[in-house]
Amino acid sequence: MKAVQVVGYHTGLQLTEIPEPTVEGPLDVIVRIGGAGVCRTDLHILEGQWEAKSGVALPYTIGHENAGWVHAVGDAVSNVAVGDKVILHPLITCGLCRACRSGDDVHCQNSTFPGIDVDGGYAEYLRTTARSVVRIDDSLEPADVAALADAGLTAYHAVAKVAQTTRPGDVCVVIGAGGLGHIGIQVLKAISAVTVVVVDRNPAAVELAVKIGADHGIVADGGHIDRVLELTGGHGAEAVVDFVGEGGATREGIAMLRRAGNYYVVGYGENIDVPTIDVISTEINFIGNLVGSYNDLQELMTLAAQGKVTLHTTTYPLASFQQALDDLDAGRVRGRAILVP
Amino acid sequence: MKAVQVVGYHTGLQLTEIPEPTVEGPLDVIVRIGGAGVCRTDLHILEGQWEAKSGVALPYTIGHENAGWVHAVGDAVSNVAVGDKVILHPLITCGLCRACRSGDDVHCQNSTFPGIDVDGGYAEYLRTTARSVVRIDDSLEPADVAALADAGLTAYHAVAKVAQTTRPGDVCVVIGAGGLGHIGIQVLKAISAVTVVVVDRNPAAVELAVKIGADHGIVADGGHIDRVLELTGGHGAEAVVDFVGEGGATREGIAMLRRAGNYYVVGYGENIDVPTIDVISTEINFIGNLVGSYNDLQELMTLAAQGKVTLHTTTYPLASFQQALDDLDAGRVRGRAILVP
Amino acid sequence: MKAVQVVGYHTGLQLTEIPEPTVEGPLDVIVRIGGAGVCRTDLHILEGQWEAKSGVALPYTIGHENAGWVHAVGDAVSNVAVGDKVILHPLITCGLCRACRSGDDVHCQNSTFPGIDVDGGYAEYLRTTARSVVRIDDSLEPADVAALADAGLTAYHAVAKVAQTTRPGDVCVVIGAGGLGHIGIQVLKAISAVTVVVVDRNPAAVELAVKIGADHGIVADGGHIDRVLELTGGHGAEAVVDFVGEGGATREGIAMLRRAGNYYVVGYGENIDVPTIDVISTEINFIGNLVGSYNDLQELMTLAAQGKVTLHTTTYPLASFQQALDDLDAGRVRGRAILVP
Amino acid sequence: MKAVQVVGYHTGLQLTEIPEPTVEGPLDVIVRIGGAGVCRTDLHILEGQWEAKSGVALPYTIGHENAGWVHAVGDAVSNVAVGDKVILHPLITCGLCRACRSGDDVHCQNSTFPGIDVDGGYAEYLRTTARSVVRIDDSLEPADVAALADAGLTAYHAVAKVAQTTRPGDVCVVIGAGGLGHIGIQVLKAISAVTVVVVDRNPAAVELAVKIGADHGIVADGGHIDRVLELTGGHGAEAVVDFVGEGGATREGIAMLRRAGNYYVVGYGENIDVPTIDVISTEINFIGNLVGSYNDLQELMTLAAQGKVTLHTTTYPLASFQQALDDLDAGRVRGRAILVP
Repeated sequence: MKAVQVVGYHTGLQLTEIPEPTVEGPLDVIVRIGGAGVCRTDLHILEGQWEAKSGVALPYTIGHENAGWVHAVGDAVSNVAVGDKVILHPLITCGLCRACRSGDDVHCQNSTFPGIDVDGGYAEYLRTTARSVVRIDDSLEPADVAALADAGLTAYHAVAKVAQTTRPGDVCVVIGAGGLGHIGIQVLKAISAVTVVVVDRNPAAVELAVKIGADHGIVADGGHIDRVLELTGGHGAEAVVDFVGEGGATREGIAMLRRAGNYYVVGYGENIDVPTIDVISTEINFIGNLVGSYNDLQELMTLAAQGKVTLHTTTYPLASFQQALDDLDAGRVRGRAILVP
Repeated sequence: MKAVQVVGYHTGLQLTEIPEPTVEGPLDVIVRIGGAGVCRTDLHILEGQWEAKSGVALPYTIGHENAGWVHAVGDAVSNVAVGDKVILHPLITCGLCRACRSGDDVHCQNSTFPGIDVDGGYAEYLRTTARSVVRIDDSLEPADVAALADAGLTAYHAVAKVAQTTRPGDVCVVIGAGGLGHIGIQVLKAISAVTVVVVDRNPAAVELAVKIGADHGIVADGGHIDRVLELTGGHGAEAVVDFVGEGGATREGIAMLRRAGNYYVVGYGENIDVPTIDVISTEINFIGNLVGSYNDLQELMTLAAQGKVTLHTTTYPLASFQQALDDLDAGRVRGRAILVP
Repeated sequence: MKAVQVVGYHTGLQLTEIPEPTVEGPLDVIVRIGGAGVCRTDLHILEGQWEAKSGVALPYTIGHENAGWVHAVGDAVSNVAVGDKVILHPLITCGLCRACRSGDDVHCQNSTFPGIDVDGGYAEYLRTTARSVVRIDDSLEPADVAALADAGLTAYHAVAKVAQTTRPGDVCVVIGAGGLGHIGIQVLKAISAVTVVVVDRNPAAVELAVKIGADHGIVADGGHIDRVLELTGGHGAEAVVDFVGEGGATREGIAMLRRAGNYYVVGYGENIDVPTIDVISTEINFIGNLVGSYNDLQELMTLAAQGKVTLHTTTYPLASFQQALDDLDAGRVRGRAILVP
Repeated sequence: MKAVQVVGYHTGLQLTEIPEPTVEGPLDVIVRIGGAGVCRTDLHILEGQWEAKSGVALPYTIGHENAGWVHAVGDAVSNVAVGDKVILHPLITCGLCRACRSGDDVHCQNSTFPGIDVDGGYAEYLRTTARSVVRIDDSLEPADVAALADAGLTAYHAVAKVAQTTRPGDVCVVIGAGGLGHIGIQVLKAISAVTVVVVDRNPAAVELAVKIGADHGIVADGGHIDRVLELTGGHGAEAVVDFVGEGGATREGIAMLRRAGNYYVVGYGENIDVPTIDVISTEINFIGNLVGSYNDLQELMTLAAQGKVTLHTTTYPLASFQQALDDLDAGRVRGRAILVP
C-alpha cells in the first residue's frame, strides 16, 4: 500500500510502497484511512523535535489524526465490525493499568502513539486496536472529522472540565481563537451556559469566534485585560482557557482570572511564572490539559453528529502531502488540512 | 481593658488601656479572649509589610488567631450564647455575597480581618460577629486551640482537598514538617488512608513527623527527590502539599509529582516557574490554598475534640507579648506561642 | 395596603386593608410586589392541608412566588438598593447554620416561608430580608418571572443535578411536560448536551415540549417504556426526572432507567415502592429534590435574562384573586396565573 | 484436578476430577487457588435461586470469592507474572465498553461471573483474565483475604461513597454488624473521620463492632431510632449504610436519616417503600450499591496489607466442602468459611 514516511530528520517525507498491516493480535483492528489530519506537530517531527522523545525507528509512517473504515478485526474485537465508520483515539492503550481502568486512559502506562512512535495514518491502512476505535454516526464522514481526533479532542477535554466547575452566569475567557479555540467555543456553548469571552490578536478570528457562538469578542490590543475586568464587574473570570501559552498569554490570562478561579493550560511555549503568594492569596488553580480520553472522543463525536461542533477542512490527495505541509507551514490552509488516500 | 497595639511601623507594639468593645449591631459577638496566637505575620505587620495591603488606621490592636468565651451578643445572634467557649474564624464575613452563600466564605467580597485591618485579639476582649464564632467542645481550652484558628485552618483546608481526590494507596508528599506541616500530617491520617511521606531539611522535624503519624520521613539532603520516586515505583506522588514555597521547594516538589497529580501550594516566597509544556504533557495541576472556611474550622475543632489533632503551645501572659515575639523571632518557641490575658 | 388573606380553612380568601410592613431589623427588605404567582399549593392551603404543618396564625397573607421592586432596606443591607428589581427566594434563611454556610440554604435550620408560615405576596408590599432578594436583569419584569421563584426554581435545582452527572450523548427522560417540565426541558437544553426525551399522557403537551427543545417526545399510551428502551439501545436512560410522582409514574420511570442511573424525584403523590434487590443489582439511585438555593435562583435568573428560559403567564389584578384561583382549579389558566397589585 | 461442582439443583455439590483449565486467549490467567470463600449465595445457588438468572449449563464449578497464585498467563498479560499472589475480582470484564473505560467495570456490558455462570474457585485451578487479577502484598495470604473478593469488596464500595460525601463530625449509621458491617466499619475508620454508629439486634455483635472501631454501638431493641436521633441532636445522621435491607430495616433507617442525607442500600430482601413527598420534603437520596470495581479491590487490598481491615476466617480442606456449607447454614462458622485446596 501507499504510505508517507519519515525517512530522516531535516529532510522531506517520502511516499513509498509498504506492506498492508495485518491483524496480529486478537484485539487488533485494521482501519482503511478515510482522512488523516495534517498537524503542526508533523512539521515539528521533521525538524527532529520528537526524535529523542519518541525514540521511533526510521523509516515509519507519520500521521496521528485519523479516521476511516474498519477493514479487518482480530478474534476478540467486539465493539466494531468490518465496514464500520470510525475515528481513532490517538493512543493505543493497555486497558490493564490503573489509569486505563479509571477512565483516564490518556495516562496509560503502556501506550503507543501511532504517527509518533509507531506507524500512523498518512497511508491507505493503519493498525490499531479495539481500545482505540470510536464508531461515528452515519451522517459523519471520516475526512470531515479526522482532525477532531487529536486537536479537537484536546479542546473538548479542557472545556469539559470548565463545564463541570462553572454555573450559568459564570464567565469563561478563551484565549486564542484558532483551531482549538473554535472547537472549544462550540463545545462550551453546547454543554454549558457559561458566558464565553474570546480574546485574540487577530480581529478576523475574533469576529469569526463571535459568529460561531462566543458571547463577547475582544481583540488583544493592549486594553483587553481591562475589557475582561469590565465585563466581570472588576472581579475577573471564573475560568480562563489558554489555547496560546506563549507570547505573554499566561501573564495576561492570570490577570483576567477571578479569586478562586481556574486557569486551564492547553497551549504551550512559555513558562507559567507566578509568585506563590499570588497563588495562595487569590486561591487560584492551574489545570493542565492533555488530549482527552476515549470516552471524551465518543462524546465529541456525539456533538459532531448533532451538528454542534463543525470544522473547516481542506482536503488533499495523499500524494499531495508535501503541498499540504507547505500550505500549513505558510499559513495558507483554511481550517485544517486533511490527506485523503 | 488592656490591649497590645500597633502604634507605628518599625517600632514596638504597645500595651495600653482602651475601652472594652461593645455590641453595636444585632449580629455582634463580644468575646473574652482566652488565648491569642503569636504568628510570624505579626512580625511582618510591624515590619510594615501589610501597611499598604490592609490600609488599617493606627493605632489598632493586633492578633488574628483567637479563642475565648462569649461575653455579650447582639439581638439577632442565635448560634452562640454568653459563656460559650469559642474559637474565631479569622475573617468577619457578610453572609450575603455569592461566595458566602456557596460555602466559600473565605472569598467573601465584604470581609474584615481582625488583627489585620480591624482590632484583633492581643487584648482582653474582641468584637466579632455571629458568622465567625465556632463553639468548641468542653474538653478543649481556648489557649490550647487558638493557633488552629488561622495556621491550623490553612493546613486543614489544603489537606482536606487532598483527601477528596486521593484513594487508599495513593501517596501524598508533605514538604515542610513545621507547624502547618504537623497539623497537615495529623489531619491527613485522620481523614484519609493516603500514604504520607514527609520531606524536610531538619532531621529532628522529620523524626517528629513520623512519630505523629507520617508513614515515611525523608531528610531533604539532596537525594530526597530520588527517594520519593523510589517509594512510588518511579512514578511520583499523586499529591504534593508544599508548606514551604521557597528555597527551591516548588521545583523539587514538581519533580516528585506523578502524571495527573495535584500540587497544593500553601507556603509562599518564591515563584512557581514551570514550562507550560511540562504542565500539559504530564497534565498536572497547581492548587492554590488560602485559609479554610467557617465550616472547615468547625470540622477541625471536631478533630481536635477527638484528640486527633494536637498542638504544642507555650503560653505567655498578655503583658509579656514582647518576650513572645522575641522568642518567635529567635526560633526559641516550642510549638506555638499563645498570649493569655 | 391591600392584601389577600387566609381568614379560615375551607372558606374563601379575603381582600382586606392591613398596615404596610416596615423595616424592623437591619437586614430587612421591604418589596413592592410586581407579581405574585398563583400556585396549586395555595388551593391546598385553603383546604387545610398545611394547617398543622405550618402552624401559621390566622389571618395571614398568602402568596409564595413573589417578585417586585425594593421599597425600603435596613441598615445592614448591602446587596440591594431601593428601586432594584428583584425576585424573592421562597425562604428567609438565617445565614448562620451549617447548611446556610455550605450553599445549602434550603435546609436552613431556622427558616421562615412567606406565604406559608408568615405574610406572603398577595399584597402590595412584603417584608423579607437581604438573604432572600435576587436582583434581576433590566430586561425582565417582576410579573413575568414571579412564578420562577418556586416552581421554576424547583425544576432548575433538579435538572442542574442532572447536568452535573451526565455527558453528551447521555439520555435524560423527563416525565411530565407541565409547568415544571417545561422549565426543566429549557434548562437542560441550556446547560447540558444531554438528549432530552419527554414523556406525557397529553399529546399536545408532548408536542409543545418538543417545540421548546425536547429531542424526542413520547405520548404515554402504554408503549412508552418500550419506546424509551428502543431509543436507548435497550439499556434505559442515564437519568429520569419525574415531575409527576403519582399515577404509577415511579414504577414506569424506574423501568426506563439504565443500570447505575439516577432517578430524580420532584413530583409527589404516590410511594416509591421498589425491591431492594433491584436497587442493588442495577445500582440505581433515587435523588430527592426540594426547591433550589439562593444561588440556584440567581443562575436561573441569568438564564431567564438570556432568553433561554421563558414562561407563559396570564396576569390578573390583585382584586381578581378569586378568578385566578377558580381558573387554576378549573384548568383554565394558560401557563401560570400571576396577580399584579 | 479436583473441583467441587453443581450437578443439579436441590441436590448436593459433588467433588470430582476435571481437566485443569489452560490458557486459551492472550489475556487469560490461570490461578492456582489458595482460598475460596464459602458464601450464602452458594447455598442459594443449590436451592435453584440463580438457575434462571445465570443460565449456566450443569455441571459447573462453584465458588466466587477466590485468591491464589498465578499459575500460567497468556501472551498479552502484562500486569501479573507466574508466581504472583493475587486476589480475583469477581467479574471478568471486557475493557472495551463505556462502563469499563470509565472506571465502572462492575457495569461492564459483556462480563462473566466465575462461580455463577462459568467455572469458579472450589477447585485447584481457575481460569480468569488479566483484567481480574489484583496482586496482593507479600504479607497477605490468599486464604486470609479470599472473602474480601466479593463480600468485603461490596462493603468497601459502599462506604467509600460515604467517605466521599461526608466531613469530620458527620455521623454514619451502620445497620447490621455482621460480616459486611464489620468490613464497612473498619474501612470507614480507615478512610474518613466520620462518626460511626452501629445498630444491630445482637448485643454481642454490637459489642464486637465497638471493639473494632465503631464510635457508638446501639442494640436494636425498640429505642434505637430515638438513640440515633439523640446522638445527632435530633437531626438524624448524614449517612445510613444499610447492610440488612429486610425485617423493617429500611423504614427504621430512613427515620434515622437527616434532611439531605444519603441512604446506602447494600443488604436486600424487603422493598424500599417511602412516600415521594417524604423524599422531596427532606431531599434525601437512596444510593444503590453493587460490588466494587477492580480499582476498589486494589484499594481494599492496600488497607488489608496495612492491617486496617482484617477478617476472621475458618479454613476447611476442599474435600470438606460439605462440612463448610453445613456449618454456614447452621450459623456455626466464626467469621468466614474458606476452602483450601
